[in-house]
Amino acid sequence: MKDRVRRIFDRLDASVDALVVANAVDPHLDQSFFYLFDVPSGLFEGSVAVAHRDGSIDLFSSPLEAQSAEEAARSDRGITVHKVERDATPAALGQALGDAKSIALNFAELTHGWFARLDKLRPETSWVDASEAIRKVRAVKEAGEVERLRKAAEIGSKVGVEIPSMLRKGMTELDLAAEMEYRMNRLGASGRSFSTIVAFGAHGAEPHFQPGSTKLEAGVSIVCDYGAFYRRYASDITRSFRFGPADPEMRQVHETVERAQQAALDTIRPGVAAKEVHLAAAKVIDESPFKGRLIHGVGHSIGLAVHDGWGYGPKVEDKVEEGMVFTVEPGIYLPGKGGVRIEDDIVVTSKGYEFLSTAPRGYLEVAS
Amino acid sequence: MKDRVRRIFDRLDASVDALVVANAVDPHLDQSFFYLFDVPSGLFEGSVAVAHRDGSIDLFSSPLEAQSAEEAARSDRGITVHKVERDATPAALGQALGDAKSIALNFAELTHGWFARLDKLRPETSWVDASEAIRKVRAVKEAGEVERLRKAAEIGSKVGVEIPSMLRKGMTELDLAAEMEYRMNRLGASGRSFSTIVAFGAHGAEPHFQPGSTKLEAGVSIVCDYGAFYRRYASDITRSFRFGPADPEMRQVHETVERAQQAALDTIRPGVAAKEVHLAAAKVIDESPFKGRLIHGVGHSIGLAVHDGWGYGPKVEDKVEEGMVFTVEPGIYLPGKGGVRIEDDIVVTSKGYEFLSTAPRGYLEVAS
Repeated sequence: MKDRVRRIFDRLDASVDALVVANAVDPHLDQSFFYLFDVPSGLFEGSVAVAHRDGSIDLFSSPLEAQSAEEAARSDRGITVHKVERDATPAALGQALGDAKSIALNFAELTHGWFARLDKLRPETSWVDASEAIRKVRAVKEAGEVERLRKAAEIGSKVGVEIPSMLRKGMTELDLAAEMEYRMNRLGASGRSFSTIVAFGAHGAEPHFQPGSTKLEAGVSIVCDYGAFYRRYASDITRSFRFGPADPEMRQVHETVERAQQAALDTIRPGVAAKEVHLAAAKVIDESPFKGRLIHGVGHSIGLAVHDGWGYGPKVEDKVEEGMVFTVEPGIYLPGKGGVRIEDDIVVTSKGYEFLSTAPRGYLEVAS
Repeated sequence: MKDRVRRIFDRLDASVDALVVANAVDPHLDQSFFYLFDVPSGLFEGSVAVAHRDGSIDLFSSPLEAQSAEEAARSDRGITVHKVERDATPAALGQALGDAKSIALNFAELTHGWFARLDKLRPETSWVDASEAIRKVRAVKEAGEVERLRKAAEIGSKVGVEIPSMLRKGMTELDLAAEMEYRMNRLGASGRSFSTIVAFGAHGAEPHFQPGSTKLEAGVSIVCDYGAFYRRYASDITRSFRFGPADPEMRQVHETVERAQQAALDTIRPGVAAKEVHLAAAKVIDESPFKGRLIHGVGHSIGLAVHDGWGYGPKVEDKVEEGMVFTVEPGIYLPGKGGVRIEDDIVVTSKGYEFLSTAPRGYLEVAS
């Protein structure tokens, strides 16, 4: 992916000779490795990409993925695959790096153990943090990336539409999560993009709750936050429901969150600061009876990871750009009672935004 | 988990004042965080544990998981939870670390970005690599950990028994993976422990192949490598099948792998070097017509991660100890034709080993 390498180098100091992206052991893999090398299959533990200023890449791959690496490299002429045993990587790296004096690394996803090994191997090298450059380049998607993200969001949206029909009294949070993930996989996902959140009742007050064996009973609210990977790209969607007798307060909470989401969406266009998107949603919530109950940033970039580089919080000055893909997900959390979050995935267009996720956002009160 | 903290400190230099375990953004979470803090729910991005020599822990958690953190800490009196905004963490950390001069870090799972931030915060500190100590302590499981691993393996084994009945002409690799994952989740898994490998035909020659849209046809071999998470602990099982007309060569391959696995298993007892386990399997394969076709280490530790700290390769001198849990998984890979791998999870006992996974290991030739 010569263009991607060049875009990253454009943001680095002119003195930088090379960029090294190194994977440790699962889950400590640098997702940028798969940005530089678009390979559909393989784990690539211990593999390393050395990218040069001219856009070319030396890729050091273990025998465990040699076949995939070689196939993928055949359609990307900038990449030379070197098949190495994991232990041989440092010596092989030395050759590819030649007399490079200044080498960039992705501090955000490189383990410190890898850094220490590299620093020992090349004690004279000046190491440069490329994580800001990589974050910014990865944030603006190419058309092909948007298509994968759209497909990932479509898979999630179809399942979102089906959630109400899956609800059964007595089912556990884990049961519902299993059903949702199965349907995403049947629709072509290669797996969930993060650990599915299904929170019944008071559990919904915790944004990162993980499902357990709590059973569904009539008269609770439900938060489902989930997403699919499609060809390594993520979706991330939240829908909130009510099971059984309606609750006027939770309905009001949902309506407030809907208005907050729309207010955030209305701000989105190239040039606006990320914090403005957050603040628009926060304002709606803080002017409602639920003041102070939004306890997280209102969105985050998505791409090769579900939390892909940056968030939309009250202090984020980064500007929104055309081609960025991110979530818009205000929520209101009432400890002891539950929560409501609505989360959609959007792509920034030249004049505003377009939804990638399409499931209805309105509050569904499902008969128990 | 005071005992765990103390066991880690026992392996560190007496001058070390504190151990810091810091999470970055998903997937760059240090699994040791969940070793020190046994919390069933929550993602804990950006959260940090500061462990002290007396076994106590200061835990800095974001509001996103505050409820889970506080609940879990109530049953673990050594832990004090500090609820902080992510941005406030450095200042809060400073307080907990006091005048500590020598601080240990888990280089293997800490991002270099986190290290750079800590080093800037405390430029006078001497940083010590605790990854070897942590790896060794985590490798020997407590009874409660073995029970979770056993449950994770049971879930995988039940699904392994069912795989032959799931096979249908025309189904894709992704279809089969979806079905396997669904059944694991229905049996109580909180998800797959790694990206499920389903490889039809020649794909089986690549150990880390990821399933795609290739359809099942009669006359191919199938490799299924998969596992479940149960209460954060992983299983990892591989079974290989033949769909449709038998193939004498692949049957011979399978028999050779079975013998190799048994040879490896027969070496397992406390005190034997890890490399002996590998070499026993490699010898069987290298004395067969498939010499040189074992292209990976014959096993790895499992625990809070599926690749949990170390492997069983030809050069690994570490000694096997009672309470260790690892996989035994020789394979033979024939490029262009396919592969066979058999993988089981075992726990080391005082005299030998016990299987955690139980699905039949024999070669199943399934009618197409």
